[in-house]
Amino acid sequence: MVELAREELHTSVTDPVSASMNFLNEVAGRFPDAISLAAGRPFDEFYAVDDVAKYLDAYVAFLRSEGVSEARIRQALLQYGRTNGQLGPMIARTLEVDEDIRVPPDAIMVTSGCQEAMIVAVRGLCSRPGDVVLAAEPCYLGFTGAARVLGVEVVPVPETDGGLRPETVARVAGEVRASGRCPRALYVVSNFANPSGVSLPAATRRALIDVADEQDLLILEDDPYGLFGLDDERPPAIKALDCEQRVIYLGSFAKSVFPGARVGFLVADQTVVDESGTRTLLADELSTVKSMVTVNTSPIAQAVIGGVLVSSGYSLRAANREKIAFYRRNLRALLAALERHFAGTAVTWNAPAGGFFAVADVPVRADEKLLEVSARDYGVLWTPMSFFYLDGGGSHAIRLACSALATERIDEGVRRLAALIAGAGS
Amino acid sequence: MVELAREELHTSVTDPVSASMNFLNEVAGRFPDAISLAAGRPFDEFYAVDDVAKYLDAYVAFLRSEGVSEARIRQALLQYGRTNGQLGPMIARTLEVDEDIRVPPDAIMVTSGCQEAMIVAVRGLCSRPGDVVLAAEPCYLGFTGAARVLGVEVVPVPETDGGLRPETVARVAGEVRASGRCPRALYVVSNFANPSGVSLPAATRRALIDVADEQDLLILEDDPYGLFGLDDERPPAIKALDCEQRVIYLGSFAKSVFPGARVGFLVADQTVVDESGTRTLLADELSTVKSMVTVNTSPIAQAVIGGVLVSSGYSLRAANREKIAFYRRNLRALLAALERHFAGTAVTWNAPAGGFFAVADVPVRADEKLLEVSARDYGVLWTPMSFFYLDGGGSHAIRLACSALATERIDEGVRRLAALIAGAGS
Repeated sequence: MVELAREELHTSVTDPVSASMNFLNEVAGRFPDAISLAAGRPFDEFYAVDDVAKYLDAYVAFLRSEGVSEARIRQALLQYGRTNGQLGPMIARTLEVDEDIRVPPDAIMVTSGCQEAMIVAVRGLCSRPGDVVLAAEPCYLGFTGAARVLGVEVVPVPETDGGLRPETVARVAGEVRASGRCPRALYVVSNFANPSGVSLPAATRRALIDVADEQDLLILEDDPYGLFGLDDERPPAIKALDCEQRVIYLGSFAKSVFPGARVGFLVADQTVVDESGTRTLLADELSTVKSMVTVNTSPIAQAVIGGVLVSSGYSLRAANREKIAFYRRNLRALLAALERHFAGTAVTWNAPAGGFFAVADVPVRADEKLLEVSARDYGVLWTPMSFFYLDGGGSHAIRLACSALATERIDEGVRRLAALIAGAGS
Repeated sequence: MVELAREELHTSVTDPVSASMNFLNEVAGRFPDAISLAAGRPFDEFYAVDDVAKYLDAYVAFLRSEGVSEARIRQALLQYGRTNGQLGPMIARTLEVDEDIRVPPDAIMVTSGCQEAMIVAVRGLCSRPGDVVLAAEPCYLGFTGAARVLGVEVVPVPETDGGLRPETVARVAGEVRASGRCPRALYVVSNFANPSGVSLPAATRRALIDVADEQDLLILEDDPYGLFGLDDERPPAIKALDCEQRVIYLGSFAKSVFPGARVGFLVADQTVVDESGTRTLLADELSTVKSMVTVNTSPIAQAVIGGVLVSSGYSLRAANREKIAFYRRNLRALLAALERHFAGTAVTWNAPAGGFFAVADVPVRADEKLLEVSARDYGVLWTPMSFFYLDGGGSHAIRLACSALATERIDEGVRRLAALIAGAGS
């Protein structure tokens, strides 16, 4: 019988962060009655199973109204399709309505979730051994994981309470270059980041474009949470400010529609020039990579998302009114519970202006051992912030998620957390 | 404005084979009335758009019949899900019914098309700089492309008319090892390969397992065409003979159901052992890679495939009776047309026992220039076999596909091809 040595498998299999996430899932499985302030998935009672067929029908009706023949409609849903997908025009229109981002439909690639958008963008941009990507740290695990699969190094740029500082990006990019490597791109979540909850002020967004220009970087702007601010005021997307085409925008429908479609996208409107002077669009060049990862994104899944977009008048903001209200209520409940149970203690926390997450600094080591105790003896789950650092950090901080819980459970979750910290600190 | 230098993008973007495939698509676009003996996609009139909702319903009805709650069903379709997917038990049952392959459901990972299965398997197995994969040549472009995205070298093993020869595999593996590299796996299409149409005899299948054992390789067995033999006789899948767990089986529903679902799978029932002696299943270890490529495969797309499987009594062979008859008719029409138009000329061809493809050796250089002439002046498209060789080869051979055409068009396509060859040779 074959026995494979685990240490001979790729580092993307054996990375300790994977083990940590497995541990978290395993603990969650062992203590199913624990309140999970760890799960950052969307709340899942906004849609019903029948909505899938409803939105499929809406998309097919739209194609018919455009005069598309029945044979072409059948092909659009059931056959292989264009590598970059069929929703480019709909997504371009939605980006204009909701985000004031104006890009040609051909600059949009529909991907198998935003995760694939990261893989495709990083793969296309990083070709030489010393090509690296920078990333705001603490960093979303999906991004560091995508880079690891490709063997591309991620260099962290430490985030502050006010988000990434442009001068820090410039410094890190300079250090990378001085070491003989080449920084190709900077990954940043512009609104209510996972895990920190932090957003970039408008001035920082403009300044980041300038830094990217000076340092000859592209910015990979990821914005899965932008719709879910505590109020309707919010700085423009970096991409909306991007007259120089410094930004590749990464999009997700996992939160704004539902995760089960596994549809995301990227916007890559940069010009590519070859040796003979021929000019193409980066999205078209990247399609070769996409074709070798998943061929194309399931047209059935695309049709469901297309049905949502056409039914909403191309506004996810309009389509998400109920969800926006729910997530606001939950984040306010989380922040109120933190105030109620931790005010006057050694625990401090940040106050994100939206999104699914907040971070608490705690006077105890927030490691896997504490998490096990927390689940078993206190009935509450959370995520150690140390998971989100590449080279150490976050040892005394925890990520609290409020997206997947019924609102009324949040206060009890934080109460249990306070009991844990009080118990562990004594 | 940003201008990116094309030569600084990754080789998976700039590879000449991509340019060749683009050229082929571009020629096909310019001459839409040409008969395409190039397109190897499935014929798309077996299903209607309404079938999507029908199979979704069938899957939901199945879950209800199993006592799954409505809340769980909603989550199964709309929420994130298990990384390795939810169809493991159904696929395991289907493999047993159709292929006599017996594997535990947990050894199955559902992927975003078979393309992702290749990416995940190659990534997991190849970790060190000198780790390479062997592949039968001429080779499916999706496999060489997947390896290129990951920066993993593919070493060709030349195929003969009788398929891959085990002693050649042993020789190439030995040469690779002697050069200081490590051959980790061998990619082979066991039935009616794309592009060659060649199948492996039963004795070769057994011998390949022995060679894999001797050389400490895994076999990546890809079998998208196995259902579509000219008769019902067919050697067992290599995986069905695999008592030693030497084989990772790669599966596709693109031909047996339809491509638009973008659902494939891999079977990895190998044991993995870590330094402490803990034993896990390779499919579970590879799930970390899968999670960083696409998180999980669209549950909606999985549900459609699940609906097909449950409706067919877990037999794709039963579900595909009409398609099997159609593809048999088309391949027989292609072989008859070759006989009719080329017998007694310098053109020779092989006679595959099934599948979508045959190969003709022609007395002229079958390059892009000839393809352009063929499309413009003769109204017929085909694929240069040179596309499928890594280091030269196939310069005087063409791949003929018969899957996407109405049967009655095939003879006219081959007649046009004969006119081209007669004209080019004179």
